[in-house]
Amino acid sequence: MSQLAPSITVTDFCARLGVPAPEGIGDTVLTGITTLGEARPGDVSFLARAKFAAEAESSQAALIIVPPGTKISRTNKVEMRDVWSGVLTGIEFFHAEPTASGKVHPTAIVPDSCKVAPDVDLGAYVVLGENVTIGAGTRIGPHGIIGDGAEIGAKTYLHPRVTIAHRCKVGSRVIIHSGVVIGSDGFKYEPTRGAFTKIPQVGIVVIEDDVEIGANTAIDRASFTETRIGARTKMDNLIHLAHNVTIGSDSILLAQVAIAGSTKVGRGVILAGQTGVSDNLSIGDGCKIGGRSAVIGNLPPGTVGIGEPLLPAVHHKRMQAVMKRLPDMYRKLRPYLGEQEEES
Amino acid sequence: MSQLAPSITVTDFCARLGVPAPEGIGDTVLTGITTLGEARPGDVSFLARAKFAAEAESSQAALIIVPPGTKISRTNKVEMRDVWSGVLTGIEFFHAEPTASGKVHPTAIVPDSCKVAPDVDLGAYVVLGENVTIGAGTRIGPHGIIGDGAEIGAKTYLHPRVTIAHRCKVGSRVIIHSGVVIGSDGFKYEPTRGAFTKIPQVGIVVIEDDVEIGANTAIDRASFTETRIGARTKMDNLIHLAHNVTIGSDSILLAQVAIAGSTKVGRGVILAGQTGVSDNLSIGDGCKIGGRSAVIGNLPPGTVGIGEPLLPAVHHKRMQAVMKRLPDMYRKLRPYLGEQEEES
Amino acid sequence: MSQLAPSITVTDFCARLGVPAPEGIGDTVLTGITTLGEARPGDVSFLARAKFAAEAESSQAALIIVPPGTKISRTNKVEMRDVWSGVLTGIEFFHAEPTASGKVHPTAIVPDSCKVAPDVDLGAYVVLGENVTIGAGTRIGPHGIIGDGAEIGAKTYLHPRVTIAHRCKVGSRVIIHSGVVIGSDGFKYEPTRGAFTKIPQVGIVVIEDDVEIGANTAIDRASFTETRIGARTKMDNLIHLAHNVTIGSDSILLAQVAIAGSTKVGRGVILAGQTGVSDNLSIGDGCKIGGRSAVIGNLPPGTVGIGEPLLPAVHHKRMQAVMKRLPDMYRKLRPYLGEQEEES
Repeated sequence: MSQLAPSITVTDFCARLGVPAPEGIGDTVLTGITTLGEARPGDVSFLARAKFAAEAESSQAALIIVPPGTKISRTNKVEMRDVWSGVLTGIEFFHAEPTASGKVHPTAIVPDSCKVAPDVDLGAYVVLGENVTIGAGTRIGPHGIIGDGAEIGAKTYLHPRVTIAHRCKVGSRVIIHSGVVIGSDGFKYEPTRGAFTKIPQVGIVVIEDDVEIGANTAIDRASFTETRIGARTKMDNLIHLAHNVTIGSDSILLAQVAIAGSTKVGRGVILAGQTGVSDNLSIGDGCKIGGRSAVIGNLPPGTVGIGEPLLPAVHHKRMQAVMKRLPDMYRKLRPYLGEQEEES
Repeated sequence: MSQLAPSITVTDFCARLGVPAPEGIGDTVLTGITTLGEARPGDVSFLARAKFAAEAESSQAALIIVPPGTKISRTNKVEMRDVWSGVLTGIEFFHAEPTASGKVHPTAIVPDSCKVAPDVDLGAYVVLGENVTIGAGTRIGPHGIIGDGAEIGAKTYLHPRVTIAHRCKVGSRVIIHSGVVIGSDGFKYEPTRGAFTKIPQVGIVVIEDDVEIGANTAIDRASFTETRIGARTKMDNLIHLAHNVTIGSDSILLAQVAIAGSTKVGRGVILAGQTGVSDNLSIGDGCKIGGRSAVIGNLPPGTVGIGEPLLPAVHHKRMQAVMKRLPDMYRKLRPYLGEQEEES
Repeated sequence: MSQLAPSITVTDFCARLGVPAPEGIGDTVLTGITTLGEARPGDVSFLARAKFAAEAESSQAALIIVPPGTKISRTNKVEMRDVWSGVLTGIEFFHAEPTASGKVHPTAIVPDSCKVAPDVDLGAYVVLGENVTIGAGTRIGPHGIIGDGAEIGAKTYLHPRVTIAHRCKVGSRVIIHSGVVIGSDGFKYEPTRGAFTKIPQVGIVVIEDDVEIGANTAIDRASFTETRIGARTKMDNLIHLAHNVTIGSDSILLAQVAIAGSTKVGRGVILAGQTGVSDNLSIGDGCKIGGRSAVIGNLPPGTVGIGEPLLPAVHHKRMQAVMKRLPDMYRKLRPYLGEQEEES
């Protein structure tokens, strides 16, 4: 690598953490941050969960961030109540995220009608449509495509190869991963003019501030109004959101979730991986739905459930235990079902 | 926006609908079309389903298209037997789809061996391989990639960032959304030459006329022959079709459906979201399969079912109701199973 | 097509197969290879499975490769113990894969800091980041994006529009299909600094030699260390692998599989389509899991199962058979449940 990798002494790094440096190692040079098991001399590491204490004992890390009162024999440790804050400090130092500085690649296509803040970065082969607006400090990776009239806020980061269709709106400090499509046509056909006819989708998608969207996810534009993702909601990879879906703020959708048209999901909702939600439903605030669930009816706020049929986790587990026994039960119950006992 | 938004008087719009304009509002200027709830003065709206009648009463819409005999007190309504036709007229006026006019972006790569009709639009950074054929009136959005020898019909629209692999064939009036991959290699390995060895896939994909394919869907090419999607079939987002799958005409596949290799799906089939279909099956014409179903055997024409095991909807619902009761049933049935009653 | 299609006499083709040519047809010219049903005069075909013998009888193929002792009346057959090896010979002749020859498209962006072997092919609009390394004989299709510091081995083929994020490592003889994203951020948030905060993902993805990855699959980079796909593992389309997942060598993951964070999958494992695996699990070597399964606990090596709950296939089938009968069973068992019999 031609770039100089960042390095820092233990003394200076501890100053960034706001904790005193352990004695005797203040001049040790730190060059990275990683897990206890992977750490090599020169690495910072951290004890995020007590169960990893044994790994902390044997880690080669030069410096270990631990919660207060952690009982390990290592002397090269520093205590922080918020260990993850220390980890973030390390990541920010050793893996500093680039900031936008107005680097517009000469191959980026930017029509005169666009309003692009001066410090925006546009990668190679980016294509902006007419009348696109991009806020200060936003970075658009190579091959990003932004349709006519789309609006993107400030300090947003579109990884390489993201497509935002015409007129859609993306907020500030949003992170969108590669391969995401925002604003594809919803799936809408009606019996008209003698056939099952496509109704062109003329609504938009609105992504509010601080949302993150995982790789290869597809979010359809509304038929007429808005498909909307609330602030601070986090979406994983390969998710499908149909037209007119709305997700409240602070929700979490894990990989391969699919939500059908016009369903309204509340705030603080968790939908675990591969869960499917039918159309035109209302999922209340704070619902927590486990992986591979089928949501086929409205859910009141705070519903916790998993599976198909959707049940509370303990009930679901008991149901599955009985399901496994069904062949045996059936055999034994045959007399009560008015059937011959099975011949052995 | 630099473009002038389209506008039209009620009189002129009603002329397009082929209905008389309501009295007294003929000169009102219309500037858009949207739902009853979203409509603002100047918008056309529509009553597509009777259950929205209350919204029609309170809508701010300047003009409302309703079915004949709709009992609402609004006077700014027009009656049409085919409401959706009226809606389409509105969408076509206020959100006119661009038509191809021979705009080839200077960055589009078009080898001399290609046969591209004169009025075809090619977006920025489009890459055509050798010997590509593209019919009249087709538009290929930015970053489209068309492989060697591929053929694309007339009036087809490839949204930005669509990949059509070599030798595949796409019909006329087809719509393909962003991120779609047509003609990726099927998953085929055979035990040969001393290992589990990849058999290169040398067949193609054929997309017939009037098909629509949703964002980030992937359709594998055949091993030797054709993977084929029948005319007027509509596919949603993030679908997987394996090699040699064939789908008949007028079928509907919803989001995240997966169909394994060589399965033949008939005409007029509906497969709802997240359904999986095993390989080498035959799914008859007119089958209607609900969401999250597992299709693991051949289905005769007209089969209607849902779930895993696949059952008629009423049966499935009853089964799920009993499933929920299984833990309770098991407890009560223990004496008949020759087991001790559970201690409470 | 401007290219001359390849052709060969039966005599010369049989010499390639290492078998004697059938009498009397040595001068027949062969121009392609396909299935028995599709074959036209001039095509080679093959009898891969005995059940297709009737098709072999009626095939128009000019030459048919069959296993030793195949009882069909055709005289234009050649016997090979390893029929698929013969098929591969045909595919290699009639559909020869291009080899890299140093064709770097003038629009490919290659910073001076990159180390690209002289015979590497880079397609149109390829974007390499800083310090990218690419080994001999590798081909990167149009619109490939390779992030800073990424390393790609020799004789690897990236189909058009593949994204490899910064610092990820791809081995030799790897095949990656269109739309794949390698190295997207894992889904990691921790309660720190007063909010549910994104922990930037600073690990990498390592793809070992001879792996194949299907279209539109997304593989997240590790939080700190590695997400790793073992040698010769084959992955289908639209798969989700979360951060820190490791897959052993010689495994097979079929379409739409999802594996949650930090799960370790062994060698020689098969996960069939749409199966979901929870986080932090260990799936032993040689496990074979059927389609649409839910893996929610560790699996010892050699586990064979399917479904949700996960059961051996025969047990699963019996369970499903009883599930179908549950409504009927419930009705008949009501007296034993202390309930009134249902009124008919």
